[in-house]
Parts: sequence; structure tokens; C-alpha cells
Amino acid sequence: MTIQQEGGHVSAEDHAMVQQFYAEHMQLLDAGSVDAWAATFTEDAVFDVPTLPEPLRGREALRESLRRTAKELAEAGIRRRHWHGMVAVFPQEDATLRVRCYALVFSTTLGGQPELHRVCVCEDVLVREDGRLLVRTRKVTRDDLPA
Amino acid sequence: MTIQQEGGHVSAEDHAMVQQFYAEHMQLLDAGSVDAWAATFTEDAVFDVPTLPEPLRGREALRESLRRTAKELAEAGIRRRHWHGMVAVFPQEDATLRVRCYALVFSTTLGGQPELHRVCVCEDVLVREDGRLLVRTRKVTRDDLPA
Amino acid sequence: MTIQQEGGHVSAEDHAMVQQFYAEHMQLLDAGSVDAWAATFTEDAVFDVPTLPEPLRGREALRESLRRTAKELAEAGIRRRHWHGMVAVFPQEDATLRVRCYALVFSTTLGGQPELHRVCVCEDVLVREDGRLLVRTRKVTRDDLPA
Repeated sequence: MTIQQEGGHVSAEDHAMVQQFYAEHMQLLDAGSVDAWAATFTEDAVFDVPTLPEPLRGREALRESLRRTAKELAEAGIRRRHWHGMVAVFPQEDATLRVRCYALVFSTTLGGQPELHRVCVCEDVLVREDGRLLVRTRKVTRDDLPA
Repeated sequence: MTIQQEGGHVSAEDHAMVQQFYAEHMQLLDAGSVDAWAATFTEDAVFDVPTLPEPLRGREALRESLRRTAKELAEAGIRRRHWHGMVAVFPQEDATLRVRCYALVFSTTLGGQPELHRVCVCEDVLVREDGRLLVRTRKVTRDDLPA
Repeated sequence: MTIQQEGGHVSAEDHAMVQQFYAEHMQLLDAGSVDAWAATFTEDAVFDVPTLPEPLRGREALRESLRRTAKELAEAGIRRRHWHGMVAVFPQEDATLRVRCYALVFSTTLGGQPELHRVCVCEDVLVREDGRLLVRTRKVTRDDLPA
């Protein structure tokens, strides 16, 4: 297996911006903030994760998916925390940022012990719009599933 | 649940400074470096965590608390590691930094397997004093306890 | 136990560079990219980890070690993820960067649940060569083993 590292050197500004973006993005996801989370993707975003039978396309599909998941978790008394780390940022010639990072998901049932739920790899293409970042494409793979 | 994101855009300098601050701060905590850790809070800091019956106020209370905890863990042969991530920094008009981040606690008994002990959310107000950051207020919530 | 913090103030540029370096470095390690990973160390690097009877010295020893580990993990259907966090960077007068950080290792067997495998502390000396960072020395300690 090879890891493609093409792309220019990332600036401190871009690296910090990506870290801040993921922090806000994941906190919105885990809070079930449907609209605000969907707004961190482009209108035509493609979101490809192994728990879904096919990629989600566009903000309305993202909203629906999070609305359903947030409801299920709330009813089950479960809190999830998504956690990005080892964030490698590769600026591209078209001004997008390609990111490859690791993603953990922690799961805690009210009154129970916290659990490590998933270990994943996340590959994003981030675009700049009005001075902020948005996810244009996301591909997530899970370590427990065949590649 | 909503997440308040008011506050200005964080600079790369401030984001790096916060990351470095938490790294040093947590390493001092986990090493049981009582005085150096307490010195990373303001004199009048308020530290509100669910494991304590009421918030700690001021450095002497922080020192006492860590001294006791460090002794108990040492006697039990347990090492703890506090780990901040998904660090969202929001500069405020009064030059303080509001931070909302996730916090993990890992616990390892000598000769045993490491364990995920806690999954928390940490909300800090950080102030600048003589070119470095200090915690003025901290509120921690645990995912396994009711909000 | 005391934590030595001597060293100057780290710049946003250096902090981001170290974060990006570790992200790429760990992704190469976990992908079993033997040559590319070894190239992130200096030619005369010393790599001291508790799982090895004595420190590895130089890139050829690093390559051999990773080649063997990657083969064993692939045959066992195990994926490992190395994850640095709480990264404290201390610039030294000789232009090297001393780093003290926490290191987690996650382990997932194909079809199984992900596990927290190790909690470690990692102390590196990083040097600059041709505009990029390289590990000159690394000392890792495991929380489950006596100091």
C-alpha cells in the first residue's frame, strides 16, 4: 500500500484552519446540529462512508442522515464523539486542500463506560468559500472492514 | 442542543499557542507536578469538574486536589493521561480565548492493559498573562453522566 | 517526576510543521511503507522503544524492523494506528526541536472490534534537513511497564 503525498507544503495558517474546521465540524455532528453541520459541506458534497449503502449526495441528504442518526442515538441514550487526528494536509494546485487523517469514534451510554467504537481513515477534499472551509468530498474507510 | 460559536476567527498563532499550552498543561497534570500545573491557572481560577462535589477555586485548592489524586494513583500503580482534541478556539473581544474541546482520559495499571477511562467535553476561558496562557475558568462534563 | 521544559517559545510555523510531520510519519508507518518511513529518520537515527531488546540504529535497521512487523500484522489480519497527541515542542539553541508527546496505538483485527493497544510517551529530537523534519532520536516509554 502506498500513500499519495502529492501536493505542496502546507502553511501554518492552512494547518490551523483545518484543525479548527474539524473541531467545529465534529462538535456540530456530535451535537446533532443538523443544519449547521450540513452547512460545513458544499451544496454538491459527496459523503462516502462504509455504514451507508451508497454515498450521500448534497446537503439535504446529509441533513436527513444526521437527523435520523441523532434521533436513534438520543432514544438509546448514547453519546458519540468523532475525533480526527494525525491530520496530513496537502494543498493542491486548484487551491483545494486534500486531507488524509485518522478518525476515531467514541461511544458512551448514559451511566455506562465509554467505548472505542470505530477506528477509521478519512480522506477529504476541502474547498474555500467566503473565507471558510467546506467538505466537497469525503471517503471514510473502517479498519475492521476489508479494504 | 446548540453549540455557541460566537467569537472571531482564530489566528494560526493563537491556535498553535493553545495546542502547545494544553500539551504542557496535561503533561504537568499527569506527572503530578503540583506547583507547575497550578501555575497554569490564574490565581482566582474556577475549575468545575463532575468528579468534585463543588468547583475548586484558586491555585491552593488546585494544588491540594492534584496532590491528593497523584498520591492515590501512585499508591494504586495507575497512570492517567489526559488528552485534549478537536480543539475549537474562539477569540473574544476582551482578548480572552474561549475553547470548547473534547477530552479523553486513559488509565493504565502497571502490568495491565490500557483503558479508556473517560470521554468528556471541556470548556475553558484562557487569558494571556506575560505572554503565556492561563486557564481562568474550566467546565468539564462527562459523557456518561446526565447533562 | 519532573518534566523538563527548557527551550524557547515554539512558533506557529514550527508547531504546524511538527503536526504535519507526525501525521505523514505515522501514516507511512501504519501503511508499512518501509522506505518512505525510514526516510523520515536521519541516517544515524536512534530509535529506542520498549518492545525491542535494544535501540535500533540507522535506517537499514528501521527498514528491517518495519518490514518484519508489517508482514506479521498483515498475516494476522491486524491494522495498527499510531496516534500522537498533546504534542509539546521545545525549540533548542542548536535549531533542533525537542518534542515530548503522548502516543496511542490502536489495533483492529479484520471483522473485530477496535482496541486501545498501548498508551505511551514519546520523546523525540527532530532536526531540519533540506526544509523538512527528520527524527534523530526517539525514546518511547509504555505506561504499562515500569519506568
